[in-house]
Amino acid sequence: MCVNRQLRLAKRPVGEPSPDDFEIVEEETPTPTDGEVLVKVLQVSLDPAMRGWMSDAPSYVPPVGLGEVMRAGTAGVVVESHSDRLAPGDFVVGILGVQEQGIADAKALTRVDTGMAPLATYLGGLGMPGLTAYFGLTEVGDLREGDTVVISGAAGAVGSVAGQIAKAKGAGQVVGIAGRPAKCSWLVDELGFDAAIDYKREHVARRLHELCPNGINVYFDNVGGDILDAALANLAWGARVVICGAISQYNAADGMRGPRNYMMLLVRRARMQGFLVFDYVKQYGDALREMAGWRADGRLKTREEIVSGSIEDFQPTLMKLFRGENIGKLVLQIAEP
Amino acid sequence: MCVNRQLRLAKRPVGEPSPDDFEIVEEETPTPTDGEVLVKVLQVSLDPAMRGWMSDAPSYVPPVGLGEVMRAGTAGVVVESHSDRLAPGDFVVGILGVQEQGIADAKALTRVDTGMAPLATYLGGLGMPGLTAYFGLTEVGDLREGDTVVISGAAGAVGSVAGQIAKAKGAGQVVGIAGRPAKCSWLVDELGFDAAIDYKREHVARRLHELCPNGINVYFDNVGGDILDAALANLAWGARVVICGAISQYNAADGMRGPRNYMMLLVRRARMQGFLVFDYVKQYGDALREMAGWRADGRLKTREEIVSGSIEDFQPTLMKLFRGENIGKLVLQIAEP
Repeated sequence: MCVNRQLRLAKRPVGEPSPDDFEIVEEETPTPTDGEVLVKVLQVSLDPAMRGWMSDAPSYVPPVGLGEVMRAGTAGVVVESHSDRLAPGDFVVGILGVQEQGIADAKALTRVDTGMAPLATYLGGLGMPGLTAYFGLTEVGDLREGDTVVISGAAGAVGSVAGQIAKAKGAGQVVGIAGRPAKCSWLVDELGFDAAIDYKREHVARRLHELCPNGINVYFDNVGGDILDAALANLAWGARVVICGAISQYNAADGMRGPRNYMMLLVRRARMQGFLVFDYVKQYGDALREMAGWRADGRLKTREEIVSGSIEDFQPTLMKLFRGENIGKLVLQIAEP
Repeated sequence: MCVNRQLRLAKRPVGEPSPDDFEIVEEETPTPTDGEVLVKVLQVSLDPAMRGWMSDAPSYVPPVGLGEVMRAGTAGVVVESHSDRLAPGDFVVGILGVQEQGIADAKALTRVDTGMAPLATYLGGLGMPGLTAYFGLTEVGDLREGDTVVISGAAGAVGSVAGQIAKAKGAGQVVGIAGRPAKCSWLVDELGFDAAIDYKREHVARRLHELCPNGINVYFDNVGGDILDAALANLAWGARVVICGAISQYNAADGMRGPRNYMMLLVRRARMQGFLVFDYVKQYGDALREMAGWRADGRLKTREEIVSGSIEDFQPTLMKLFRGENIGKLVLQIAEP
């Protein structure tokens, strides 16, 4: 355990991230000091937001610096502890980055119970994506009983949980938008969505009009672009548009495209609002307890797609995410416990 | 008074409305029946929203039908009354369209006091534009004391009133964005805006950054396009973006351009919300009383630019509006009382 391998950001990507944008570097394994622990990273979370972190445009967190370890949510096991909060052998999640080992203040890590759910679930449905779905729908979307709810990126880590939370919280019609028949049937047959639209094969605006004849009350957007425009065209009076992400736009080399139909906010007296899960940190505990309950009674199904490999596989696995090849939470497994 | 001349919509404009899109038609003067009055139209209001009414895209009101009188707010004088609500000689405002005479149910017209303010003011600062500014800022923008408020289209009928209401309601910094030095100096020197940005000569995003170092709390948008993007880039945490209009985009033959920077709603946890003044009809009376008070004590200055002519001048006067040539409310005077 003397050598730690890291994936560092070498260049700022233009358009899609390419292998050249990263470099693998070896350094001596760092030594934890008081209050810190050394963690062996087992799993790296792949998230659409990573593309933003690689860019130096103004955002909600500073960009990853050139030459710095690529930021990433991770799950791992404590191998050395200088804190009484964590002991060797404890499984933890935290933002340790794309590297084989990391040190962190024990307070910055969350111990998780792998007896209750698999480790990767804490990077997905019972982790940041799940919490993002929860607060986006309930706090920003102001979800009300009987609402017609539409979710884009519905087969992804956030979207798949959002649809199930909507049903658990009493929504009426819940429609998911996703990009392959296998995803759509998973949403409807396994997760209990009322309907799904395959945006690669169907006319989204027309299908939304058919499936939501009284309009959309809450639209939870993970994708931006044409699908956001199709949803805006179908809003109900007083609708809430929750801006969670815009994965269709993150790799556009010529800049983001804005929603052409945003004046429907005026026509339908609707609002569009952005948020970040971190704003709700004080409510994480209550939300996770509620979600764990739904998971236990079968109302919340979580799914992870785990790619086995090493930190070298980070870029190709991230591209899998941007191409929409995953169903559920995409995770890169880089070591076994 | 046997012949009534009307301007009717002959074709749906593509891009900017052209003279060919309208036709002048003579018809017999209509006869009012029970509850109705006949009004001699004196002034026609020119409003950016008119462009939308000419289009058959889905909107908040049905489009003007081909062959129908062009919809317009008007001010006029009652010449014949079959209602005890109004008497001949009363001055009224209402939506009578671009024609020399119109009949309407007396209940659909509002009698105005030309002793308190000139007739045209009731099409401007003490009419729909003033009310739009009022409810957009207070209800949708949720204006709070000390807020930094930015208003685009600030020298127009709505924007010029919005900035003054913001000051009257206790806003901190109020910045207007307009398109000529004469407009900018009017905003600052006459109306009490704290600063103005000439978007034709200055870099809007950079100037907003300088003038609003803590970010924009309320952005009242009348224009859309690049200026909306510049404002989005400068939002404060928790900002409210009020979508009132998008005059820069209405004549785009290749469709609206959406705000590229809309993801700043997420970065700054902000919301963007549309509205229409008609939603607040029950509160008109209170708002108008408050505004009349401000007008009486000098806190609200209203200005109208009155073009003298006939209904034939409707299209060129509308183009004056779209080219931003007016300061304050633009009105076409087609007759004298």
